[in-house]
Amino acid sequence: MDRDEKRKIITEKLAEIVGREHIATSREELLSYSYDGTGQEFLPEAVAFPGSTDEISRIMVLADQEKFPVVVRGAGSGMTGGSLPVKGGLVLAMSRFKRIIEIDQANQIAIVEPGVINGHLRDVLKPMGLFYPPDPASLNFCTLGGNIAECAGGPSAVKYGVTRDYVLGLEVVLADGRVIETGCRTAKGVVGYDLTRLFVGSEGTLGIITRIIMKLLPLPTAAITFLVCCRSMPQATGLVRLILEQLQPRTLEFMDKTAIALVKNRLPFALSAETAAILLIEVDGSPVSVKNQAAQLADFLDRQDVLSYQRADNRTEADLLWQARRAVSPAAFALRPDKISEDVVVPRSKIPELVTFTEELARKHNLPVFTFGHAGDGNIHVNIMLDKKNKDELEQAEEAKKALFREVIRLSGTLSGEHGIGNTKSRFLPLELGSETIKLMRQIKKLFDPHDILNPGKIFPEDQS
Amino acid sequence: MDRDEKRKIITEKLAEIVGREHIATSREELLSYSYDGTGQEFLPEAVAFPGSTDEISRIMVLADQEKFPVVVRGAGSGMTGGSLPVKGGLVLAMSRFKRIIEIDQANQIAIVEPGVINGHLRDVLKPMGLFYPPDPASLNFCTLGGNIAECAGGPSAVKYGVTRDYVLGLEVVLADGRVIETGCRTAKGVVGYDLTRLFVGSEGTLGIITRIIMKLLPLPTAAITFLVCCRSMPQATGLVRLILEQLQPRTLEFMDKTAIALVKNRLPFALSAETAAILLIEVDGSPVSVKNQAAQLADFLDRQDVLSYQRADNRTEADLLWQARRAVSPAAFALRPDKISEDVVVPRSKIPELVTFTEELARKHNLPVFTFGHAGDGNIHVNIMLDKKNKDELEQAEEAKKALFREVIRLSGTLSGEHGIGNTKSRFLPLELGSETIKLMRQIKKLFDPHDILNPGKIFPEDQS
Repeated sequence: MDRDEKRKIITEKLAEIVGREHIATSREELLSYSYDGTGQEFLPEAVAFPGSTDEISRIMVLADQEKFPVVVRGAGSGMTGGSLPVKGGLVLAMSRFKRIIEIDQANQIAIVEPGVINGHLRDVLKPMGLFYPPDPASLNFCTLGGNIAECAGGPSAVKYGVTRDYVLGLEVVLADGRVIETGCRTAKGVVGYDLTRLFVGSEGTLGIITRIIMKLLPLPTAAITFLVCCRSMPQATGLVRLILEQLQPRTLEFMDKTAIALVKNRLPFALSAETAAILLIEVDGSPVSVKNQAAQLADFLDRQDVLSYQRADNRTEADLLWQARRAVSPAAFALRPDKISEDVVVPRSKIPELVTFTEELARKHNLPVFTFGHAGDGNIHVNIMLDKKNKDELEQAEEAKKALFREVIRLSGTLSGEHGIGNTKSRFLPLELGSETIKLMRQIKKLFDPHDILNPGKIFPEDQS
Repeated sequence: MDRDEKRKIITEKLAEIVGREHIATSREELLSYSYDGTGQEFLPEAVAFPGSTDEISRIMVLADQEKFPVVVRGAGSGMTGGSLPVKGGLVLAMSRFKRIIEIDQANQIAIVEPGVINGHLRDVLKPMGLFYPPDPASLNFCTLGGNIAECAGGPSAVKYGVTRDYVLGLEVVLADGRVIETGCRTAKGVVGYDLTRLFVGSEGTLGIITRIIMKLLPLPTAAITFLVCCRSMPQATGLVRLILEQLQPRTLEFMDKTAIALVKNRLPFALSAETAAILLIEVDGSPVSVKNQAAQLADFLDRQDVLSYQRADNRTEADLLWQARRAVSPAAFALRPDKISEDVVVPRSKIPELVTFTEELARKHNLPVFTFGHAGDGNIHVNIMLDKKNKDELEQAEEAKKALFREVIRLSGTLSGEHGIGNTKSRFLPLELGSETIKLMRQIKKLFDPHDILNPGKIFPEDQS
């Protein structure tokens, strides 16, 4: 039986499971499910839109028999290729898994399906005075299932933590079609191994999440934003340290001087001429608490030798300040048509060292490099601008990336804070993890997915698999 | 070769690894390592006091060859038998692993060995303005390694979370002696599978923790305590819900009316006669923040129909209020010589239902039963008083315990919030977890420890292993 014939038979069987109207196989349709936030493109052989856990279970029984790859896809907004069918096979598009099954206000818990958009859940929770904290930049279109697969973070992680801190339990379809439940409905719970957090961040390689129990918090009802112009990057991170010793801001973002140079003439307000680093700080909570936190922060900043600072007491004013950060990426594309954006983390005291290193990288490789990110937790987005059609620039950018990763590890950091490994960083895994650690992870993968059908080609470097 | 001879040879080899002075084999010495907080007793065949990761690695190579059980022990304060050598073998006493290797004030991180006492770390951190939040009742003697093995909680978990929320990375010796590192030095990080949190709560069955990277927080410099006398348990949990919608108290403890009856005449202050439930509430933070939180809480309580409330603005006054809770256990032993204390969790709105159920249990089984615990997260300590020498009472207590667990599951709860499963709850595991989930956990156990030498007889029910 040739490949095409086999594919046809499998597609027939899939259609029996999910219904013919929930299978896509035309080239035009497949193209829509072939890319993600990385700009890579891998065509699947088919896309299925399952409607229930039972259907996914039956699909996995079939995949287990026929040994075809199954790659789960939320919104395709991932930044490391996690949802791409790099080995072909079937894409499971979770767009029909969008029910909010229960919101338990008394216990501050939500039970949702993985296709629910992060921002949609926020909107639904708001009138109830509740809040799901993790806030990736893509929150208006990314799905909660994808957030869990990559353990997404966001600016507010410095105060509220990342996705894994809000996942209490899961329903998961395993590689052979078995369905299990993990975790519990309560914040405390230590009954057997923590399978829940083993699935969080596993990028669709261990199982398919079909239901999520998540912890919620009371909605903060007020926030005040500060934009601080600093004389140097070390001054900025010094302030970050001192602020975190006395306050718990919701966000503590920074921009380096290259990023500032890109936007300084496009802002609706003036920046001090010598600004070498910007901090964007937000405190949140009840109106009384925010007022006090802001007073404390203002008092603190008044006693520091900063160039200047501005304060926004409402959302409209805050949005103006945030333009400084939001304008960076669009402005950068005036320099070069393409961007490599790396999500790395260093202990926050090491940020100045890493930023200096990126300045050296820019000089050495003759490419614009700018950084911004989450100064509060050391999570830095390093952006290398290039023209991918220019082969030399592409090589230089690759060299710069490798040097960056080596430096991050030297500074006791980690290669990914909130984007995962996917296929774009998998070859760098041995830079960070020892061979025995990787071996153990591979054994776990093999235990959960003996035929390597769940999102193959992700996390682990190819050459050893 | 008979058993005694073999034991002698193994003891010799162990002495070569750790030094003769770091091995104990006399009956008197073994007895000291045979019990824990459960009152059970299991004699090990030897106790070793290793001094380095390398020594533990070599011990595990030997254990892997000779197939003897290795049970790690911290302070032996566990409440479910986690540190007991139920199958004999070697106890690894971690008392020499007590170095605080590094405290990184700038990044609010500590690197410690697992034998460090929880309270000792707190004392060391205090003058630095830092703080390790998880606060089990045994914090003055329990070790951080034990806390991680059981994912310990404490009263402050409602605000600060449990042990797993503070463990960033680990060094672990595997069953065959390999040494791996997991996690990272930063709060964010998603590089490969979350092995760190797989080890947290795994009760010494997957590996031996030899080094811990932990997240710290700034030390709250003030706290105010409230004791609230409520008319009923539903009123108390109703207040808990409303308080958690507006404030984040550090503790939200409750006592039921049976517990109150035990202590009401022994307190240094009077309780309202009709008190049917007590809430102990603490808010913490900076002095300004605490003052505001306390004002908000007082204002809220003034508008509720509670019997009365008291407020303690300093530690001395607060200690008086806490006597209400601390006096309960000593007073209970006037009723019966023995206590079965179960650590269960239900969604916090279900607390009144569970407390009513325990009152029925007391009547039905004719034994005193009282409850107190962490109302904020639904983590309830149910205490059944009995005379273990009285066979009928022992049987009744066992029946009551079984009925309690069934009810907890019916209320969407979990069998253990912060004490783990150990050997005392392992036979109840199938009440909470599905057979496929247990099977997967057993497969993970088998992958990490193919010869079942790491803390055998724990977590999993015996009959199926």
